[in-house]
Amino acid sequence: MLRTGETICSPATSGGGAIAVIRMSGKDSIGICSSVFFPFDITAKLEEKPGFTITYGEIRQEDELIDDVLVSIFRAPHSYTGEDAVEISCHASPYIIQKILEVLVSKGAVAAQPGEFTMRAFLNGKMDLSQAEAVADLIASESRAAHRIAIEQLRGSFSDEISKLRADLLHFASLIELELDFGEEDVEFADRDELRDLVNKVLKITRDLSSSFSLGNAIKNGVPVVIAGLPNTGKSTLLNRLLKEERAIVTEIPGTTRDAIEDVTVIDGIMYRFVDTAGLRETGDIVENLGIRKTLEKIMSATVVLLLADMNEGTAAMSALLEGVREQVTGQDKKLIIVANKIDKDPLYNRDNFVSALEMKPEEKVLFISALTGEGVEDLKQTLGEILMNERLSSEDVIITNIRHYEALVQVTESLERVLSGLEDKLPEDLIAIDVRQAIHYLGEITGEITTDEILGNIFKNFCIGK
Amino acid sequence: MLRTGETICSPATSGGGAIAVIRMSGKDSIGICSSVFFPFDITAKLEEKPGFTITYGEIRQEDELIDDVLVSIFRAPHSYTGEDAVEISCHASPYIIQKILEVLVSKGAVAAQPGEFTMRAFLNGKMDLSQAEAVADLIASESRAAHRIAIEQLRGSFSDEISKLRADLLHFASLIELELDFGEEDVEFADRDELRDLVNKVLKITRDLSSSFSLGNAIKNGVPVVIAGLPNTGKSTLLNRLLKEERAIVTEIPGTTRDAIEDVTVIDGIMYRFVDTAGLRETGDIVENLGIRKTLEKIMSATVVLLLADMNEGTAAMSALLEGVREQVTGQDKKLIIVANKIDKDPLYNRDNFVSALEMKPEEKVLFISALTGEGVEDLKQTLGEILMNERLSSEDVIITNIRHYEALVQVTESLERVLSGLEDKLPEDLIAIDVRQAIHYLGEITGEITTDEILGNIFKNFCIGK
Repeated sequence: MLRTGETICSPATSGGGAIAVIRMSGKDSIGICSSVFFPFDITAKLEEKPGFTITYGEIRQEDELIDDVLVSIFRAPHSYTGEDAVEISCHASPYIIQKILEVLVSKGAVAAQPGEFTMRAFLNGKMDLSQAEAVADLIASESRAAHRIAIEQLRGSFSDEISKLRADLLHFASLIELELDFGEEDVEFADRDELRDLVNKVLKITRDLSSSFSLGNAIKNGVPVVIAGLPNTGKSTLLNRLLKEERAIVTEIPGTTRDAIEDVTVIDGIMYRFVDTAGLRETGDIVENLGIRKTLEKIMSATVVLLLADMNEGTAAMSALLEGVREQVTGQDKKLIIVANKIDKDPLYNRDNFVSALEMKPEEKVLFISALTGEGVEDLKQTLGEILMNERLSSEDVIITNIRHYEALVQVTESLERVLSGLEDKLPEDLIAIDVRQAIHYLGEITGEITTDEILGNIFKNFCIGK
Repeated sequence: MLRTGETICSPATSGGGAIAVIRMSGKDSIGICSSVFFPFDITAKLEEKPGFTITYGEIRQEDELIDDVLVSIFRAPHSYTGEDAVEISCHASPYIIQKILEVLVSKGAVAAQPGEFTMRAFLNGKMDLSQAEAVADLIASESRAAHRIAIEQLRGSFSDEISKLRADLLHFASLIELELDFGEEDVEFADRDELRDLVNKVLKITRDLSSSFSLGNAIKNGVPVVIAGLPNTGKSTLLNRLLKEERAIVTEIPGTTRDAIEDVTVIDGIMYRFVDTAGLRETGDIVENLGIRKTLEKIMSATVVLLLADMNEGTAAMSALLEGVREQVTGQDKKLIIVANKIDKDPLYNRDNFVSALEMKPEEKVLFISALTGEGVEDLKQTLGEILMNERLSSEDVIITNIRHYEALVQVTESLERVLSGLEDKLPEDLIAIDVRQAIHYLGEITGEITTDEILGNIFKNFCIGK
């Protein structure tokens, strides 16, 4: 995959709009474009145009006119990839896009592989690896929260943090290794207390970052929510209300395929994914223990559980369900919200009696709503956002969303824990040095200071073509 | 819809790619963009940038960073619309696209309606109406033939022809009207023979253009083809072979939804649409008269009929079907190709005997193929192309594809036929003048020299947003 001598081309937009953009990068990109592009101003010469200019003209294949296009020129190193680059803006016809690619390839360009433009940006030092990964996340972001995390990562806030930790550790590693050079002499360049403090500091940060992964991942892919409850408590009414009110947010953009995804919605900037609630929406599903067990299984995959209760029904079955859900949720980094529904009807219990009948605990969150009329649903949405945001999102903390980063951080943490116990046990410096180096290695993998073809291949294969 | 004072904005690409382009046009577009755009080179000022330049920077909404973008500036009249215009190239995230639109609207832009950019190009004299329509056709073009017609129309070859005819008629109309001014004096400025010659010349052209419509329409929307034949003659084998071999052509482009369209394929630059052949593919369908009648109904909607025969079966039923198909096809501007299939098997007839057993006529096209092995299928594809191309496509003739143009041309033809018979019957010049004016009016509607809000509304409502 690491072919950097070639000039690559590919569509950068998907079909279906009014215009399409075809992108080319590599040392021959301006020359290749020039050989098939005929400016309307015949005195204009693409090869002589400075970067950041646009030229209007037509692309021809032999005698066949393919399209009127705008050609944008970028000159190395001032381009996305750091190489000479060209963007061709044409009419978004499938035939035209294909023809232009054909004619560029016939003049020596090769079809770009997924992520190849961004990989070149990385290889040419335009961004580090975690920033490159943020590009893919940014493109995929569909909610304010996912966008915020991606754009901060793109701006390098995460990379900076990791690089700083790595530099501190590197400093100590070299001091320890210096001691090794002096062999028998028993000098101590690296102050053990300082090293212990540093390791503790780094450990705190890597543990915090690791623990942000479950939230970060949920935000990136949609926070999984289960709406649980006994039959006829209004689960599907509530789901429909949540979907209906908020769904229009992202559907105004032509060509988004959001409508095809069932049961995903963005509320107050966070995307929620309703986990296979279809089964739970069937009435008669949750009867006796079997039904309860099924519900509990669904909850396994959820970050948030909305447990619906009917204020106008007896509380015995509900108590049993609540008991089971509670067990499932406790200590599991899951949020439980008890939702007492149907307040529009004349309730069997008043709110206080209801709470005590269910033997709710003081710390348990209970909300009173009518899914039918919408009363209280605003509160519910706000609560949903708060229980996630309050934790981390509101702060300026870095949140990680990438499993590769998570796995590397786990390795860093384990290495540093070994360093600590090594210091405790007064292990020889060469053993300690190995673990410090290990931690440095994994930190370097995150930003790409340490990298292999395999790592690069795995990262960029998941990019879309044209990025 | 005719709001020209506003600055309009809209996405010009559909979601799903790596980058998206948001387009803005109108006198405030550069100012609006500038108010939310912060160049990385802080000495750069968008307002001072010349047209056809690109500036790199970030778009912010208050304190929130939305995205790093490239902003392309175009200055009136050197832009698509003829107005000041801006194109913002951002990451193709649904959230980012929506946010940028939001922030532009908050600064005074309004969301563009479908086709509003192109309508402005028309209103500002950048193109005439038939050229504006060609833009939509060009974007939709999926085959070489459709593309060729659209791009020639965009380049004005059709408009030129219509404008020339209209100018000629206008000249005569004014001469006739001059005679009216002289009332009783019985002068004749407009030579009646010359007028007759001109009308005949124009009529020939408008009739030719009108008659090109069925081909043009077929090319634009896909040439409807029916594969007919008795059960088990290999209809679905042939269809699959035609689809399989050619389908990949347009599917390499990300985001095209071609796969969702059943039974459409491009062969040698022409798109074919296989008309509801599903029903015909069921075996046992075409039994006795009922089956034949069903086949004939399908043929109604076809431009090309591929009638399959099995070389290894008796010819009695086939003869009856051929007889029926012949009747349906004759004088109907439909093409019939008789396809003798299964030449891979040891045939019951040799080719000559088969032709005579079916009592084929000398002018009837018969091809011998094996849909199973592919033998002869190349010939079939070539024949398919030839029978359409030979007629018109190979020539430089203008082909019309637009029903609005077709209907206007029919009106022109009818008006001019009335002029001819009026001249024949020596009708008074005021009556003749009315019909000449009528023809001029309809010619003017095609290019937009005559237009109404209703016509404009109808044309542009079918455009995509962003064009």
